[in-house]
Amino acid sequence: MQVAIPIFPRLTALDAVGPYEVLQRVPALDVVFVGAEKGTVRTENGMLGLSVDATYDEVPAPDVVVVPGGIGTRSVLEGGPLLDWLRAVHPGTRYTTSVCSGSLVLAAVGLLDGLTATSHWSCLDFLRQLGAVPVSERVVEHLPERVITAAGVSSGIDMGIRLVELLVDTVAAQAAQTYIEYDPQPPFDAGHPSKVGPEVMARVEEYSAVRD
Amino acid sequence: MQVAIPIFPRLTALDAVGPYEVLQRVPALDVVFVGAEKGTVRTENGMLGLSVDATYDEVPAPDVVVVPGGIGTRSVLEGGPLLDWLRAVHPGTRYTTSVCSGSLVLAAVGLLDGLTATSHWSCLDFLRQLGAVPVSERVVEHLPERVITAAGVSSGIDMGIRLVELLVDTVAAQAAQTYIEYDPQPPFDAGHPSKVGPEVMARVEEYSAVRD
Repeated sequence: MQVAIPIFPRLTALDAVGPYEVLQRVPALDVVFVGAEKGTVRTENGMLGLSVDATYDEVPAPDVVVVPGGIGTRSVLEGGPLLDWLRAVHPGTRYTTSVCSGSLVLAAVGLLDGLTATSHWSCLDFLRQLGAVPVSERVVEHLPERVITAAGVSSGIDMGIRLVELLVDTVAAQAAQTYIEYDPQPPFDAGHPSKVGPEVMARVEEYSAVRD
Repeated sequence: MQVAIPIFPRLTALDAVGPYEVLQRVPALDVVFVGAEKGTVRTENGMLGLSVDATYDEVPAPDVVVVPGGIGTRSVLEGGPLLDWLRAVHPGTRYTTSVCSGSLVLAAVGLLDGLTATSHWSCLDFLRQLGAVPVSERVVEHLPERVITAAGVSSGIDMGIRLVELLVDTVAAQAAQTYIEYDPQPPFDAGHPSKVGPEVMARVEEYSAVRD
């Protein structure tokens, strides 16, 4: 089975690399990073380059698509090859999925119309404007519609493990989790705006402005 | 402050990208991916390319070093520019750190002699052979010695948040955690060999063999 991860300038690296790391360990799955043209794309602030190894034309029938997010989704939403490719390949996928603001891209091509979906916490209002019913959950599945969305950045790891369960079996999913030692022990319980106070949110705001 | 992440052929991508994603959001920190030569290095199974943006010579005085792991550490341990660079830069760092089997590299240049340290669960015995005292913990800190080691793959995210606390402050660390929505909800409690049965470990073994 082929898993295609579209990447584009100013993506959030962990949105893509989290699911990749889970999925690539499973022998039944091949992961390919796909984009408008082969070569290197830079992440949000330019500090990391990731390689596009195949153009959209070269990946016409992926079994799974994982769309990452990031500031770069703003340009993606203006139209272009990723939207065209998603429209073309979605009818043939087993699952079309997103991490973080990648769900805005799925919504933009109509895949989330009237469906509950999630995104980075900062994008839930925008997701509603694009026709979805935003919910603040870690992973939102619509198996009959073959669409799965995950929340902000790190949630792609949780979704990746669930994808292995859906694509292979529960033992495979647990094996992938054991291998990447995903036994999280965050030093704080600060993983969502609902869990932190105004001082932390002011710092988030400050850091977002700089990063953008 | 400059954070240098050395990368090398056949590294585990998430070991490097997890900490990167946490650290790069903090305006006081610049992250640079450093290597033997500029260009693209491929991850363990070759499915992802990451860019080396600076050579070791060009990064002579990093404030923080984060050494990732992966199968590629076997070649690194045979000697070469990464070991030489680590020996040269460690005396000047605020923290020299590792994720996963990256701790074997720290041990190989003597940074863990007689100290408790962690690694991917499959590497703890090897870590002992290299002079460290292996412990099965998520993150092991030796602040006077300025050395921190993290366990397998995904643990670099936990360590990254702690590093932000050490380098900036607690509010910054919590802000970074909120931004990447690190509120983990793994679908299983299967993040360590001690938590799974023989059927899952047999699958881990099978997948490791293929990946290698």
